[in-house]
Amino acid sequence: MSKEKPSIPKGTRDFGPAVVVKRNYIFGAIKSTFEKFGYLPLETPAMEQLSVLTGKYGDEGDQLIFKILNSGDFLAKTKPEDIEQGSKHLTRKISEKALRYDLTVPFARFVVMNRNEITFPFKRYQIQPVWRADRPQKGRYREFYQCDADVVGTNSLLCEAEIVQMINEVLTNLGLTDFTIKINHRGVLAGIAEAIGEKGKEAEICVAIDKLDKIGKEGVRKELLERGIAGEAVEMLEPLYNLAGTNEDILEQLQNIIGNTSEGQRGLQDLHKVWQYLAGLNSQALTSQNASEAPRLQLEVTLARGLSYYTGCIFEVKVNNVNVGSISGGGRYDNLTGMFGMPDVSGVGFSFGVDRIYDVLEELELFPSSSQVGTKVLIVQFDKESEQFALPLLQQLRDAGVASELYPEAAKLKKQMSYADQKNIPYVLLIGSEEITSGKPQLRNMQTGEQQAVAIETVIAIIKEQEV
Amino acid sequence: MSKEKPSIPKGTRDFGPAVVVKRNYIFGAIKSTFEKFGYLPLETPAMEQLSVLTGKYGDEGDQLIFKILNSGDFLAKTKPEDIEQGSKHLTRKISEKALRYDLTVPFARFVVMNRNEITFPFKRYQIQPVWRADRPQKGRYREFYQCDADVVGTNSLLCEAEIVQMINEVLTNLGLTDFTIKINHRGVLAGIAEAIGEKGKEAEICVAIDKLDKIGKEGVRKELLERGIAGEAVEMLEPLYNLAGTNEDILEQLQNIIGNTSEGQRGLQDLHKVWQYLAGLNSQALTSQNASEAPRLQLEVTLARGLSYYTGCIFEVKVNNVNVGSISGGGRYDNLTGMFGMPDVSGVGFSFGVDRIYDVLEELELFPSSSQVGTKVLIVQFDKESEQFALPLLQQLRDAGVASELYPEAAKLKKQMSYADQKNIPYVLLIGSEEITSGKPQLRNMQTGEQQAVAIETVIAIIKEQEV
Repeated sequence: MSKEKPSIPKGTRDFGPAVVVKRNYIFGAIKSTFEKFGYLPLETPAMEQLSVLTGKYGDEGDQLIFKILNSGDFLAKTKPEDIEQGSKHLTRKISEKALRYDLTVPFARFVVMNRNEITFPFKRYQIQPVWRADRPQKGRYREFYQCDADVVGTNSLLCEAEIVQMINEVLTNLGLTDFTIKINHRGVLAGIAEAIGEKGKEAEICVAIDKLDKIGKEGVRKELLERGIAGEAVEMLEPLYNLAGTNEDILEQLQNIIGNTSEGQRGLQDLHKVWQYLAGLNSQALTSQNASEAPRLQLEVTLARGLSYYTGCIFEVKVNNVNVGSISGGGRYDNLTGMFGMPDVSGVGFSFGVDRIYDVLEELELFPSSSQVGTKVLIVQFDKESEQFALPLLQQLRDAGVASELYPEAAKLKKQMSYADQKNIPYVLLIGSEEITSGKPQLRNMQTGEQQAVAIETVIAIIKEQEV
Repeated sequence: MSKEKPSIPKGTRDFGPAVVVKRNYIFGAIKSTFEKFGYLPLETPAMEQLSVLTGKYGDEGDQLIFKILNSGDFLAKTKPEDIEQGSKHLTRKISEKALRYDLTVPFARFVVMNRNEITFPFKRYQIQPVWRADRPQKGRYREFYQCDADVVGTNSLLCEAEIVQMINEVLTNLGLTDFTIKINHRGVLAGIAEAIGEKGKEAEICVAIDKLDKIGKEGVRKELLERGIAGEAVEMLEPLYNLAGTNEDILEQLQNIIGNTSEGQRGLQDLHKVWQYLAGLNSQALTSQNASEAPRLQLEVTLARGLSYYTGCIFEVKVNNVNVGSISGGGRYDNLTGMFGMPDVSGVGFSFGVDRIYDVLEELELFPSSSQVGTKVLIVQFDKESEQFALPLLQQLRDAGVASELYPEAAKLKKQMSYADQKNIPYVLLIGSEEITSGKPQLRNMQTGEQQAVAIETVIAIIKEQEV
């Protein structure tokens, strides 16, 4: 047996009780909203066939997939030339399984395998860890949770409107107030490129215009030229720098620029429709500007997000005045399962970044004390007699649903109190000979230090009151 | 991109919504009891350093650990002789990480790494999947959840008594009534072996006596001799075949056989103490026999469970009249972290087998309908006008906390109704031109087929009433 000092793999984390409880608070808020909107949970195995994952994330992605070594004598089926051809070739000979890299490919795989049993539209959510052999750094882990919700099998833009509502509800329920849901449409981007005679160059255009705040108009013009956009086309982009006003105003200004392209038309109509649905759902507040604040849902022409995958609306969410990247994002796609030979499965999905949301809630001190569940009462014991007296009280507390503990040994008072302290237990019951005689233990409020002799029924009542 | 028909690895499972919801019902019952007794959640990474896991599960166990191939050019650091020496040797050169095989070793690793921050006694529970390269077969999977609770850093037998209570509470809350919690003690087993002059042979003795029901006394005698127990010693075991009566009776009979050995003394005293604690906790019902039923907690002299690891009380739980193996088990150990060079960490722990509990609840039809959460109302739409009318109703339902959906397209009625059916949605709201005029949609109870025109407030009231 090794006696070396144990460690955990780089880029992975242990989550102790305090952190698990806070993370579960976030997961709980996300799940309850997903379920209110009719999304149901799916769980897939951590291991997928390597062939299911390979080729889905590009060459770079393939490198970042954690492969699992075949069990037993994995070399038995290899030939000397397999080894000579190097690691990449050999991998396919000695590894058949790999760890899930995201939740989208397993979802697509599940849909294809169960196509005959699934009732479409299929609304699923999935909250599970994924693994990537990325170089670990601050905020980037090799094991982290993704929280995805997708609906496939319908083109209805009601789904997009509901996604905006879900994002708003989850973040509001978590206590966030100052955030922006950015929305754009792949058609708008394609329309812009087409309208200026640079069809297909939307990626280059986005990257450059996105820097407007940083490098100014002149800088953007220069970068556009460098990225191969014709001078004439660059001039035609001019109106995009000056988009202003409400979402409706911006839609109108875009109409003037790109309304004559079919892709642009499609994008603007879809966005209009999302606005309409939100109005029908009495969520105008999300889209309209009031006197003091910008709307939460904002049309952002430079938002691009993984152009190759998305085909319709795209989303991204930013918490304002907090130095954390986007905490949610997603979009519509029209070919989820084509990679597995099942064409024309369209849908729309989005996900929450739990690690980032966690950081935001910590920074803004938004974790409620109720998210720190745990033992409510510790009974301190001094000797066999007080232990004996304590046992039925302990049982009464638990029967009343109060999370409680009896310190399991007659240790020194200081040690027992420090246990309560470390575990953040709000109340301690002290049982000495006097308390046994009177039948009333001393209840100590660990926060205020107040102490009073009370019957166990009163203890229960006091704690129950705190919980409301 | 591969277009082959996708599959999942042997021995792994997808859990669709209906199953996830039922599994979460079981996890929920387990968690709430754990927390009521002061246990808090811990989560460790799926991947551990291979060196942390190797040598902890015996040679056979080492073979069953899923190893992860090093990222990048894993052959770069190998020499030709590494390959010549075969798979087992090569594994150590090309794999540094592995998938968690159980929750005990990661827990021990966590305790050692955080020994200075942890307040002892440390009560943690952990509900996470583990992976084993076992040959898949009915009821045995390569990925499955373990649900462990352990308290380390105390020798108090209050912990054992509370474990009995927790098992009883979880199973009772899940609706089970006919189950037996078997308890034994490592000292009792050692005492028996010592008393008959066969010190250290408790494993052989247990295996043989355990077959009493199957092969009869004569068979047991024969097997004991075959296993190397002396004839004289075999005769001395005779009283064990005739143990009868209440737990107290059996303790007394054992006292006569093994009471003069120090290990036997220790075992019997510990078991007595557990009984005493349960009495103090008003849980006598668990230990005492009433007129009609055997006690739920039964002293079972042949219970052995992993002798090498456990050192005190041991537990195992069996649901009676259901053909499923034990659904819970555990015991006390006195050297959790010695494998990592930190001696003398004693504790006691147990775990639930969720897959087996699931099978039992299915077989006995004990999953309550409330464990099938999901959409409560589907609004069916016929055209743009009914969709427009439906949107604010949908919002009202959700604002009232009712999980609800609007079918996202004006599809054929049959298709929308079948969606409700497949998704087990109990109510459907139908909105035609008549309903728009009256302002009262038709509410259809999908189970009874009853249908009535009601205001949306009434719909909400009806559904809220169902939830109570």
